Amino acid sequence: MPVYLHDIPLETAQAHFNKALERAGLGGRLGEEEVLMDEKSIGRVLSQPVWAKICSPHYHASAMDGFAVRAEATAGASPATPVMLETGSQTAYVDTGDPLPEWANAVVPIEQVESLDAEDRAAENVRDPLFIRLRQAATPWAHVRLMGEDIVATQLVLPEGHVLRPVDLGAIAGAGYSAVMVSRKPRVAVLPTGTELVEIGEPIKRGDIIEYNSVVIAAQVTQWGGEATRYPITPDRFDLLKQRVQEAADQFDLVLVNAGSSAGSEDFTSRIVEGLGELLVHGVAVRPGHPVILGLIRRSDDSRSVPVIGIPGFPVSAALTGEIFVEPLLARWLGRQPNQPLEIDASLTRKITSPAGDDDFMRVVVGKVGERTLAAPLSRGAGVITSLVRADGIALVPRGIQGLEAGSPVRVKLYRHPAEVEKTIFAIGSHDLTLDLLAQYLTRYGRRLVSANVGSLGGLVALRRQEAHLAGSHLLDPESGEYNISYLRQYLPDTPVRLMTWVEREQGLVVKRGNPKGIQSLCDLSRDDVSFVNRQRGAGTRVLLDYHLQKLSIDPAVIKGYELEEFTHLAVAVAVASGRADCGMAVAAAADALELDFVPLYPERYDLVIPCQYLENDLLSPIFDLAADAGFRTAVAGLRGYSVKKMGNLVLDCSK
Amino acid sequence: MPVYLHDIPLETAQAHFNKALERAGLGGRLGEEEVLMDEKSIGRVLSQPVWAKICSPHYHASAMDGFAVRAEATAGASPATPVMLETGSQTAYVDTGDPLPEWANAVVPIEQVESLDAEDRAAENVRDPLFIRLRQAATPWAHVRLMGEDIVATQLVLPEGHVLRPVDLGAIAGAGYSAVMVSRKPRVAVLPTGTELVEIGEPIKRGDIIEYNSVVIAAQVTQWGGEATRYPITPDRFDLLKQRVQEAADQFDLVLVNAGSSAGSEDFTSRIVEGLGELLVHGVAVRPGHPVILGLIRRSDDSRSVPVIGIPGFPVSAALTGEIFVEPLLARWLGRQPNQPLEIDASLTRKITSPAGDDDFMRVVVGKVGERTLAAPLSRGAGVITSLVRADGIALVPRGIQGLEAGSPVRVKLYRHPAEVEKTIFAIGSHDLTLDLLAQYLTRYGRRLVSANVGSLGGLVALRRQEAHLAGSHLLDPESGEYNISYLRQYLPDTPVRLMTWVEREQGLVVKRGNPKGIQSLCDLSRDDVSFVNRQRGAGTRVLLDYHLQKLSIDPAVIKGYELEEFTHLAVAVAVASGRADCGMAVAAAADALELDFVPLYPERYDLVIPCQYLENDLLSPIFDLAADAGFRTAVAGLRGYSVKKMGNLVLDCSK
Repeated sequence: MPVYLHDIPLETAQAHFNKALERAGLGGRLGEEEVLMDEKSIGRVLSQPVWAKICSPHYHASAMDGFAVRAEATAGASPATPVMLETGSQTAYVDTGDPLPEWANAVVPIEQVESLDAEDRAAENVRDPLFIRLRQAATPWAHVRLMGEDIVATQLVLPEGHVLRPVDLGAIAGAGYSAVMVSRKPRVAVLPTGTELVEIGEPIKRGDIIEYNSVVIAAQVTQWGGEATRYPITPDRFDLLKQRVQEAADQFDLVLVNAGSSAGSEDFTSRIVEGLGELLVHGVAVRPGHPVILGLIRRSDDSRSVPVIGIPGFPVSAALTGEIFVEPLLARWLGRQPNQPLEIDASLTRKITSPAGDDDFMRVVVGKVGERTLAAPLSRGAGVITSLVRADGIALVPRGIQGLEAGSPVRVKLYRHPAEVEKTIFAIGSHDLTLDLLAQYLTRYGRRLVSANVGSLGGLVALRRQEAHLAGSHLLDPESGEYNISYLRQYLPDTPVRLMTWVEREQGLVVKRGNPKGIQSLCDLSRDDVSFVNRQRGAGTRVLLDYHLQKLSIDPAVIKGYELEEFTHLAVAVAVASGRADCGMAVAAAADALELDFVPLYPERYDLVIPCQYLENDLLSPIFDLAADAGFRTAVAGLRGYSVKKMGNLVLDCSK
Repeated sequence: MPVYLHDIPLETAQAHFNKALERAGLGGRLGEEEVLMDEKSIGRVLSQPVWAKICSPHYHASAMDGFAVRAEATAGASPATPVMLETGSQTAYVDTGDPLPEWANAVVPIEQVESLDAEDRAAENVRDPLFIRLRQAATPWAHVRLMGEDIVATQLVLPEGHVLRPVDLGAIAGAGYSAVMVSRKPRVAVLPTGTELVEIGEPIKRGDIIEYNSVVIAAQVTQWGGEATRYPITPDRFDLLKQRVQEAADQFDLVLVNAGSSAGSEDFTSRIVEGLGELLVHGVAVRPGHPVILGLIRRSDDSRSVPVIGIPGFPVSAALTGEIFVEPLLARWLGRQPNQPLEIDASLTRKITSPAGDDDFMRVVVGKVGERTLAAPLSRGAGVITSLVRADGIALVPRGIQGLEAGSPVRVKLYRHPAEVEKTIFAIGSHDLTLDLLAQYLTRYGRRLVSANVGSLGGLVALRRQEAHLAGSHLLDPESGEYNISYLRQYLPDTPVRLMTWVEREQGLVVKRGNPKGIQSLCDLSRDDVSFVNRQRGAGTRVLLDYHLQKLSIDPAVIKGYELEEFTHLAVAVAVASGRADCGMAVAAAADALELDFVPLYPERYDLVIPCQYLENDLLSPIFDLAADAGFRTAVAGLRGYSVKKMGNLVLDCSK
């Protein structure tokens, strides 16, 4: 029975895998091939150092357009005592790059030469006068590119393991090569498996999963210098999958089997690896990505071993497994250094918990608010691929740590350019559908809007803690009927802010299509046969609901689902669409998005709150430009129930 | 006559060019096309935002392998009071990702379920028991991935202008797309021109220039998201070039004409652009890269204008012109943000002068010595492509500044990853051919060796100024016959150092093949018919020469070429090979490199001097490993005149 390691720490798994690869002779470069010096070679990895074959320039060359001379013959030339030289015997015209005549040892630039034949130096025959006159002596080897100035034969041009860039191709060609040896690209097979999978573009029904992991993995492999081949989906049939894995191993350098690696009923991969070779590791203590399988199987002709990696099925786990196990392996095989993401120190915006036994790869958004660099954790779910799309980087919470408090320092491995971090606008607060539109328009200004939906009150708290540049807020004061101002006085008493009206919009009840339960007002919420989905405490919509329930004297305790909280308008609509509830309060556009019906109830104003300190630089200025931009206003006004009449009105502003 | 701007500042040139492009309707995206969600789409730029078409998951999905239940039916379950549920009516087995049955609202992970049929939970039929027993109540929606958890329909998945990465392909596919619209790749023609040019791989003779600029430019265009087509070399024939430029403009979005842009006799490009359209800019005040031409010409069918850029012929100028003018143009046309290199602050290692009227793009090597980040200027020659290959980045010396003192702060736009800067070893001092070998071997350890050749004494001075990690030195003390120690006492009296013998090598006279002048010893240097090439003051080889000249009572004043100084062994050999001198002093291997003959004279020791402070981390440790490495020692010993017998001997060492 094969020895294998179950649920082991990441470094142990990597070390075990690497040792097995080395034993199998797979610890280094797989092979090499010749590539021509053309644009297709960029990104390839030199498998041998490049030592210059020739000098460059390979002769003494003129560095200017002018006349080649012997410096000695110009001795004594001065404005008062010019020297005359005869073309042919004493001087000769040379263009930049032309070889110096054997007898010459300097070039006089054409600007310093008086032609004795032509007054006009730009004339065609300037290169062929009978005599020239010089009023300045030339120093030996002036304006000459000496042979070998750039490259001397036998000199190291580029070391082994170097990844070719455009200028390198020039230097290599200049050193006398028309082709160089580079590492062969590792050939990688990607096998998606699972009866529930359907190919991208196929029609889907309940229970189907769109198979895109193989595309993500193949794209990663391509980006990292490998050559990926995607297999069609293999259904959950043990023998068929086993046969395909063996087939793939016979033709490829690495076999990646996606999904089928959890402990569920489709868990064939580990048994297949065990059957065809050696199961090295089953389960690695990382999150997301736990059920990783590492193994080595033999080719049918017994010629060599081929590593197999069982990649977990959840998309985030799959992509991170690629980064953790596939990239370093490809780097080894290509003979290059593994990728090293840039790292940045940041401060965590909120408390997180973490499984104590696992290295936890937390996706975060990074932005600079005031002087502090902040890391805001994104969804922790392994199924949430958008958390990777949105992530600026990964903060590792090492095993042994069960959680981190808000404000804790974290080190973030960046996915993005640090300059993008400086262009990130953090919006924390109430959710509004137009924030997505705003995000889209802001990209044209080189800004990135990152929004976290914590409700209006949560937004004011985030501003107080200096964790966001702005907050969306629509907090109605039941006494004054005013929006936001009394709350600002309470939550941000000492912070001068700009309060700008963003939109007016209609709140109401999202109901199923055709409104089968005939819901007409908040009074229907107390019905026995009506279930509700609520917004979280502190959300403006929740404040609005509670205000009107009180006016109508409806006891929240009688509302089924009052305790079920969602964080956005769209999430409320989704809950209704999926049958978790009959209705919920949200804006009309959320109902439209999910093709639901809508019962309009209350109009309201939604403002942006921006502390004055963030107006000192131009980070946020595109938001004000857009508030006045006709195209943007038209796009917002196109959403049902939205008005832009007051967009841009300053309810409060900073003192100048 | 067309208005054009001559030798203008960079920003003026860019603004003028951009305005003309906008007038011609070429200021934005050129067009769009559809790409499938597969690995070939990475790097493409979204021409439209991606709004989600469907939710992901598009149904409530089990997040675990286990049993779907109604949470209400499990109420009250505890270790003492288990709840039994019947399969089919009350519970059903679900795999991770399976849809939740309509009636269920929670999943109990299989680990928490007792099957009443099988003791062994791993048995195949665990998914189909008649009853299950639970000892813990389920909370509603526990272990369920709610519909829309990842993506909600209508939500913004990715904004316009986003450059696709592997994970994005997954998110887009998950949002219901099998294809998306991306910006069409700009089609770029690259026309190398010049009668003196020969294609890479062709045999070359004196005066020929290997045409590799078009490859560098085409590779740049490819890397920046364009599609490059290289034309064959066009000789310097005005009508032919004019015809080809018009042909290219008729088929491509951008025409790049390389060389022929200086003021020399091949300067056709500006006249051609003038003839075919509008010459916008001729000459930009940047160095290297001065003679840039920017223009717009009409297609033959008059359908639209096409920009033409005349790119200077010197390779560094050509590559930088690409970065300055072509990359931003492609970024515009693709609708993405232009590249933004990372920037780093560094301190200049030596004084430089700069043309006052030009923005001077200085190539520098960047490394960290002790606590300081240093920028060492590389060769300033526009013909030295290796200066770009070696560069870690570019420091801009703005026009108006005529030079910078050593120690001046400079801001460097980095070409490399900042982590590589931390792995850079600065060696300043005496040149030895084995430093290239060392550089090659060090890459295997993830280190980069950057060496500047300033001679042995210069190296000691650099160590004193803390500008290098180590210095090669072979300074013979004429009185004691010892190497280096007395010089260390004089130049680094207060710096504890490790002095490690590197190689023993033979110094002698490099002479032409066949030694036509019969040179046998230093005595021949005083002959009238023998010319010499010297090493610079402070070089160990110069010290050795002067020592022996004195012993032989030869007056340097009688040696022809004694004042001609070169900075490396190879440069001395090149001077002999190219006929600038009959002989020079160097190591045997330098003669071998250039296929010259060698007259051996004096053996000597070459040491490495390393201040102890740089031994505190492991940056330099691979050097000591290599000194003991059999493969490396064999490679060094293979050079003629080299011995590694004493390699690694510690003449002086740091106290522990």
